[in-house]
Amino acid sequence: MEPLMGVGKAGLKSSNKPDILVVLLPQSCNASFLFTTNHFRSGSVIYSEKVFRKRGTVRALVINSGNANCGVGPEAVLHAEMMAEKAAALLDIDPEEVLVFSTGVIGKPLPIDRVLQAIEDACKLLEPLDLKRASEVISTTDRYPKYDFVKDGKLEVYGFAKGAGMIHPQMGTMLAFLFTNALLEEDVLHELHREVCDRTFNSITVDGCTSTNDSFGLISLGVVREDLQKVRKAVEEVSLSLATKIVEDGEGATKVIKVVVKNASIELKARMLAEKVATSLLVKTAVHGRDPNWGRIVAALGSTPFPIDQNSIRVYIGNHLLYDGKVHSKAVEAARKYMEENSVIEIIVDLREGKSSWTYYTCDLSCEYVRINSEYTT
Amino acid sequence: MEPLMGVGKAGLKSSNKPDILVVLLPQSCNASFLFTTNHFRSGSVIYSEKVFRKRGTVRALVINSGNANCGVGPEAVLHAEMMAEKAAALLDIDPEEVLVFSTGVIGKPLPIDRVLQAIEDACKLLEPLDLKRASEVISTTDRYPKYDFVKDGKLEVYGFAKGAGMIHPQMGTMLAFLFTNALLEEDVLHELHREVCDRTFNSITVDGCTSTNDSFGLISLGVVREDLQKVRKAVEEVSLSLATKIVEDGEGATKVIKVVVKNASIELKARMLAEKVATSLLVKTAVHGRDPNWGRIVAALGSTPFPIDQNSIRVYIGNHLLYDGKVHSKAVEAARKYMEENSVIEIIVDLREGKSSWTYYTCDLSCEYVRINSEYTT
Repeated sequence: MEPLMGVGKAGLKSSNKPDILVVLLPQSCNASFLFTTNHFRSGSVIYSEKVFRKRGTVRALVINSGNANCGVGPEAVLHAEMMAEKAAALLDIDPEEVLVFSTGVIGKPLPIDRVLQAIEDACKLLEPLDLKRASEVISTTDRYPKYDFVKDGKLEVYGFAKGAGMIHPQMGTMLAFLFTNALLEEDVLHELHREVCDRTFNSITVDGCTSTNDSFGLISLGVVREDLQKVRKAVEEVSLSLATKIVEDGEGATKVIKVVVKNASIELKARMLAEKVATSLLVKTAVHGRDPNWGRIVAALGSTPFPIDQNSIRVYIGNHLLYDGKVHSKAVEAARKYMEENSVIEIIVDLREGKSSWTYYTCDLSCEYVRINSEYTT
Repeated sequence: MEPLMGVGKAGLKSSNKPDILVVLLPQSCNASFLFTTNHFRSGSVIYSEKVFRKRGTVRALVINSGNANCGVGPEAVLHAEMMAEKAAALLDIDPEEVLVFSTGVIGKPLPIDRVLQAIEDACKLLEPLDLKRASEVISTTDRYPKYDFVKDGKLEVYGFAKGAGMIHPQMGTMLAFLFTNALLEEDVLHELHREVCDRTFNSITVDGCTSTNDSFGLISLGVVREDLQKVRKAVEEVSLSLATKIVEDGEGATKVIKVVVKNASIELKARMLAEKVATSLLVKTAVHGRDPNWGRIVAALGSTPFPIDQNSIRVYIGNHLLYDGKVHSKAVEAARKYMEENSVIEIIVDLREGKSSWTYYTCDLSCEYVRINSEYTT
């Protein structure tokens, strides 16, 4: 038994394309949902988090694009509830097992009548889940749909997502939904979800701005028993694939940047240093200019609470060693050539003090980003 | 008795303008020095911090522009020491009372012979301290010199600074030196310095990138006894003046942005929220586009560890209320007009939960910033 989907149109997007997606699971499923840590949150996030915390299982998802259902006062939560109840009534399922997600413009109330009608249309015409189509329906400013599928023996993990790296003029939302046929108990599922999320969706950045609507779900369809490591590997693979697609789609992005901090004393240090480099405007503009500017990289590394040994660390771009306590001028030209020729730029920092590492993904900063985000009018 | 200055040229700047400044104080002075918190630090910073921590008083400053004396290995600290000793020998003062500061390109060793010769030239031709000239000599990419002077009865506070908001292609350094004729004991001086620095130089940002060389000195010439509150007020005034000049001079900046978070429950919360808004790329590009985009402001406010009550907070641009749990669409046009017409844009956030407030200064983000910082070649 596969998940089913239905599509509707409430006229929320200026493109006038379908903007309502309903996903119906074969039965009540164990799942794990992670939501934005932003304290300013969409009514849909508030509602879904509350319901899922209470219930713990899920049967259906209702997702709308084109409107974030956010910044409009307490009615936003009421509207999310109405959307869940509408779908539940039509699908004859428990409303407490229906979760609601939104993405789009902040500050405009949902035209709830049109939304409820579109949900009705969607529920009446269910078909097998089509990952590409699902991604398209929930997309706002994505340039291409984001989905992936991994099969390992009997194990299946697949998912669809949206997010174009915060280019939505208000701010981009990342939505990602992964499904696996593996049977996973609640605790195991939550732990796996958190760990994978940390290393994938929580390790990407385009402009460091956290949305009010980000949501990531991992749903266990509970069909086959599988070795946990095998499941983890497949879930990580699909998650990383979707997460990097989001970064690649950052408007104005011409390069993906992979920041690897390795051999740190502790994981938190590796993570903070990687994040600091990945969010540095000076590093991102240097990559945009194909400039192997190690000085900006080390300045970013040095600006967290964690000390660094400036005489011992090593900084590479690609596999070109640029700094190891002293500068390697001859490597600069080779590094520049590497930056011209590759679409993914690896910045590798070796702290040489331990065994922990972290990787953060970002993209370069261009005039296109500034133009897009300064030309939007409220 | 006034401070004296001498100027020299070591050929460190591509403009081939004077790049060595020596300041000689009338006697050993109480002082307070604050340095960058970046763990990757200039040899001059390492040296000066070590010497001052040991000694606690200062008699002379040696400042070079055009070279950060950073990222070149341990010799950088030796070079700083040589510069201090050269000046001390020529001025017949204690070398442990000579502090060294550098600003400029990272990764190039100082041509120490030329530097020492230029220090000699400077020491031989001392004249009364000219704030404007001093600022010019230590400047790298500033578009104009930064200095100010406050007089209140017998009390005098004056200073000079450099810094063009992190536009130096490696990264900008902020140097600021304040002098007062007020007699201040060491403890009082340190506390005053820290408090003023927190609310001024530590509350400005252009691109959130922390330099390897930032230094701020407050020197007490110890001539007149003055009421501490009076001194604090004057020191704050000069510091704020210099700090905002630095933000104004951010390359590509067309607007100064003043982010005020008020009525927070605690000071740290006000500060973190103000800083988050001031460092948000989405807010800075919105200001660049003269777009009164409150949605981006609240998303930034919500993305710190501190919770916010999205139904109770109020967001103003200028004195136009845009959001107070619901949107005020009619205020949008007036706010946009305000943004077109004013060179300083005030974003005011009223949390309505306490009595603490904080102000952060930044500037808008433009294509010019991206262009400057991506066109530099290492």
